[in-house]
Amino acid sequence: MKKQSPADPRKRKGLIIVNTGEGKGKSTAAFGLAMRAAGNKMNVFIMQFMKGQWKAGERKSFEKLDPYVEVIPMGDGFTWDTNNIEQDKATARKAYEIVKEKLLSEKYQMVIFEEINYVLHYQFFPEDEFLELLKNKPEKVHVVCTGRNASEKLIEMADLVTEMKMIKHPFKEQGIPAQKGIEF
Amino acid sequence: MKKQSPADPRKRKGLIIVNTGEGKGKSTAAFGLAMRAAGNKMNVFIMQFMKGQWKAGERKSFEKLDPYVEVIPMGDGFTWDTNNIEQDKATARKAYEIVKEKLLSEKYQMVIFEEINYVLHYQFFPEDEFLELLKNKPEKVHVVCTGRNASEKLIEMADLVTEMKMIKHPFKEQGIPAQKGIEF
Repeated sequence: MKKQSPADPRKRKGLIIVNTGEGKGKSTAAFGLAMRAAGNKMNVFIMQFMKGQWKAGERKSFEKLDPYVEVIPMGDGFTWDTNNIEQDKATARKAYEIVKEKLLSEKYQMVIFEEINYVLHYQFFPEDEFLELLKNKPEKVHVVCTGRNASEKLIEMADLVTEMKMIKHPFKEQGIPAQKGIEF
Repeated sequence: MKKQSPADPRKRKGLIIVNTGEGKGKSTAAFGLAMRAAGNKMNVFIMQFMKGQWKAGERKSFEKLDPYVEVIPMGDGFTWDTNNIEQDKATARKAYEIVKEKLLSEKYQMVIFEEINYVLHYQFFPEDEFLELLKNKPEKVHVVCTGRNASEKLIEMADLVTEMKMIKHPFKEQGIPAQKGIEF
């Protein structure tokens, strides 16, 4: 399963990037990548798999970067209902089909699967199907997958994997509430 | 040295945030924070302590977010000369004095010391002076410090510390060159 080095290492290659771990910064770094890519006139598509994770600050900034960053947050027409696993699976499927179409359209040079690891970890969506998509993705498109508990198989397939490790967290240790501009 | 919990935990508090470690995403996550903050109409100042680290993609996106994100990259009027330690110290001092003034002005709700850990680690700038500044910073201003090798003292003083740990890196392992939109 391990990727072969391309014949010509100078060739432009779409990377599979994974940000995982218990610490902060997984999504924030993905949004930073989106911003950097947009600045380079690359089109970016973000599918937000987790309801309620989409923050006002990001949305407003991405609007200014438009038309280069397009986002579909969960909650816009989707509902997670953790008491109904079949409904959750249907929701995940719906989100997946949209982002899959975007990925295969080749209209975007970067596609971000925001919190996909969560969805796979809790088996709301079959991992093998997702990995198969990545295996057959358009060669030059960068894919970014975020969320805790990235699977071994995804890590094996990925080119660049970073674990965000929590060393210190104010909200847990010190009772400081979430801060505007940091957490949302 | 450990910070006390504030009397009223719901109070707005400027956090000291540190992104460190050998992995990717330290600066990218800081830029993501800047973007989120800017989207919330917070003013952000970024001092880029390392020459040549400033990427075209970020710059162009931040320009669209203007006037909320202001950046001074090293290399604009500064020069690092690693063969001349005294000159390097003078350069670090010059950058520090600018960002210190910005921090104390309270015109910014977030100030990012980009790659400051590098500068402190190699003793281009006296750490105690920097820590003293953080200790006396305006209470509501968020400060973000990035770079490898964050010192124990800085970690002790910080509220939120994340270590970016490299699990897999394509440029090292597979001979894939740096990719536009990812690395620059």
